Amino acid sequence: MEQRVIDTLRKVFELNGFIGIETRAVETGASLLKKGETSKEIYLLSRLQEVGHESDTPIEERLGLHFDLTVPLSRYVVEHSGALAFPFKRWQIQKVWRGERPQEGRFREFVQADIDVIGAGDLPDHYEVELPLVMVSALEELRAYGLPKATVHANNRKLSEGFYRGLGLTDVEGVLREIDKLDKIGADEVARLLTETCGATEAQARACLELAELTASDGAELAAKFDALCEAHGIAKDSESYTLARQGLDTLAMIVDEAAAIRPGSVIADLKIARGLDYYTGSVYETFLDGAASLGSICSGGRYDNLASQGNRKYPGVGLSIGLSRLVSYMLHTAGAHASRVSPAAVLVAVWNEEDRPAANRIANQLRARGIATDVAPTAAKLGKQIKYADKLGIPYVWFPATAAEGAEGAEPAGDEVKNIVTGEQVAADCTSWEPDTVVAQQTVEI
Amino acid sequence: MEQRVIDTLRKVFELNGFIGIETRAVETGASLLKKGETSKEIYLLSRLQEVGHESDTPIEERLGLHFDLTVPLSRYVVEHSGALAFPFKRWQIQKVWRGERPQEGRFREFVQADIDVIGAGDLPDHYEVELPLVMVSALEELRAYGLPKATVHANNRKLSEGFYRGLGLTDVEGVLREIDKLDKIGADEVARLLTETCGATEAQARACLELAELTASDGAELAAKFDALCEAHGIAKDSESYTLARQGLDTLAMIVDEAAAIRPGSVIADLKIARGLDYYTGSVYETFLDGAASLGSICSGGRYDNLASQGNRKYPGVGLSIGLSRLVSYMLHTAGAHASRVSPAAVLVAVWNEEDRPAANRIANQLRARGIATDVAPTAAKLGKQIKYADKLGIPYVWFPATAAEGAEGAEPAGDEVKNIVTGEQVAADCTSWEPDTVVAQQTVEI
Repeated sequence: MEQRVIDTLRKVFELNGFIGIETRAVETGASLLKKGETSKEIYLLSRLQEVGHESDTPIEERLGLHFDLTVPLSRYVVEHSGALAFPFKRWQIQKVWRGERPQEGRFREFVQADIDVIGAGDLPDHYEVELPLVMVSALEELRAYGLPKATVHANNRKLSEGFYRGLGLTDVEGVLREIDKLDKIGADEVARLLTETCGATEAQARACLELAELTASDGAELAAKFDALCEAHGIAKDSESYTLARQGLDTLAMIVDEAAAIRPGSVIADLKIARGLDYYTGSVYETFLDGAASLGSICSGGRYDNLASQGNRKYPGVGLSIGLSRLVSYMLHTAGAHASRVSPAAVLVAVWNEEDRPAANRIANQLRARGIATDVAPTAAKLGKQIKYADKLGIPYVWFPATAAEGAEGAEPAGDEVKNIVTGEQVAADCTSWEPDTVVAQQTVEI
Repeated sequence: MEQRVIDTLRKVFELNGFIGIETRAVETGASLLKKGETSKEIYLLSRLQEVGHESDTPIEERLGLHFDLTVPLSRYVVEHSGALAFPFKRWQIQKVWRGERPQEGRFREFVQADIDVIGAGDLPDHYEVELPLVMVSALEELRAYGLPKATVHANNRKLSEGFYRGLGLTDVEGVLREIDKLDKIGADEVARLLTETCGATEAQARACLELAELTASDGAELAAKFDALCEAHGIAKDSESYTLARQGLDTLAMIVDEAAAIRPGSVIADLKIARGLDYYTGSVYETFLDGAASLGSICSGGRYDNLASQGNRKYPGVGLSIGLSRLVSYMLHTAGAHASRVSPAAVLVAVWNEEDRPAANRIANQLRARGIATDVAPTAAKLGKQIKYADKLGIPYVWFPATAAEGAEGAEPAGDEVKNIVTGEQVAADCTSWEPDTVVAQQTVEI
């Protein structure tokens, strides 16, 4: 299941010109600890013969497993900057590890699927609408596996920060942290926290909530409503705060309008998105599935103006990341997809007796040469047992080779025959020309 | 490069009915330490907040990274035995980690590609010829990337052990260890070591070397030469030792004869293969590339009668493993393949000015919908710069959208045109029907 999902994502990413990279799982402690907040989740490594002496080495010099694909991308871009063509569009699907205690739906080891575009020095903002759209089209392909429709909710750090500063609030991180709890604890509780922990007045807290609850169907409406909100709360259009907010607003308006033109309903403005705004510097995205609110965001990301730097040169980026293990787990448990340990084979060639095995192998190799995945019965057991083996493996066809020796067991056909064990239909067949029914064959491949 | 190699191997494994599995990278210390000899290479994990207290937890209860794909397979088979159909044929391509100091061509993190077939209770010996042949056909597919021809060298633990015991030698592991040095230090030096460290007489040592140097072109010749050797050294045909050796010999003779019938020259008997005979219980395989002796074996494996056990039930297996990272490294450095950071895109759509970007995006999406990987120029830079970007990314075609605004820059065409930037040829094109030249398009995909 997961492999088919990965193949689908990769196909979409490559269709859009993203280059696949693979980085080592191990990074230095110094690289991993740059993003301080998640430091507690890092797994450090020690070689067996170092046990008991681990503490001799400072954590920065030790090795650890990457906990996301952004830290390795940052290192990769700096190491290979001379050889890369910028903007550098890359996809990367790999395992990441977090040293947290495992809970339901949260693994210590999971797969992330990331796309990022990295500029050298600068990066045009059209990528801020293109990247979420690539993710939407990738998620759209997964609907064949029962995934519900996905919608990207976008916000912008500058918009929120400018508005809060315009209100006179300075603890921007604090306000974002409380606004992030809106869905969980409700507006009244958030208002209380804003006043208690972020130094907001009752009126400032209400203004923050009004911004979070602002909705609009297009960029022009968004701008009009935002301007009205600023006027209502005395944020002057010539203030620095308004200028910052307006910069974010213009980008967000561009994103929803462009996305609506290309794929209506795929990307909406959602001003209560606050998670990640402490890390991202511009656009921020979260992605929700219809009817799966409890799952939370399945694909998040944003724009960061400083992924890495090298001397005076900065590398700004826009990226999104799918938590693939959680998504596949959801697809398996809720969305109706199911995993089973089925063989990729479409055909099992029966073996009448061990002396006939070479003939069975020749038939199998003929079918394989034509791209038909084929297995051969493990033993010359009773036919019923061979069919049962195929059935247990989910192999839809059993091939009966023509009887090799004259006068052998009566049931053996004079020419090759193939039986569809689902329908029971059995027909004469030639291994140089026979084709499986595509629907039946696909069942075994796609489940 | 590595991704294309993985895709190729996976295709061959699935054509042969192997089921892909993926296991977590992390196993318990207890599982990892079962194979005592490699224990020094294990990487153990510790969560950051445990630093300084690692030793509070016994190694067996700690977590570590798998160093091969056999330990996880063993655990997987026991955990899922109720749901699997046996014989269980599985492929697995994953990273493994070893806590060794990195050397040239040996990484601390590398990818292995394994196939194994596991029986419940018993396992027919025809798999001992089928599995190396699957690997040979997989390696054969890689010749498209410049890999030289591969030959599997097979031996059998029972054959060697029976012969040594028949000679009166009891330190079988010791003899195997010294015989393994034959290619490196030569026959005289091995003879000296056999007498010094394994208690062999001069005559016994010479007999061991004669066995190691025995060659044969088919099973019958192998058996005749082996019997002559036994007679010359007084190993009686009714002895237990001979019976054991003969069991191994018969399997080895079957393997070379069957392989010769299906794929001549792919599998040969090589009685000096000693590595792994301490672990495997029957057949053992090493695989060498023509003209790359110094690379050593690129694909090794064998039969083990006790992969795992569950109560009284044993799970015997036959498996082979390709050291993929080393192989890809060889292909890149020696075999003429080359990696470059090229885009998967076949087409870059040029952008005359930013207002025309939506038109360029529409063209790109039309091409993508027909399966043609397409990128769009990052900025409306001078045309030469856009072409240079395509060139640096290895994108062979640049698409010129029809001029959007009348009276714009003179160079812009009135209808869409596409330029092959390798040949310089430029033609009128329609994005709903145009197809790239397959040879040109493949170049960008396969490099």
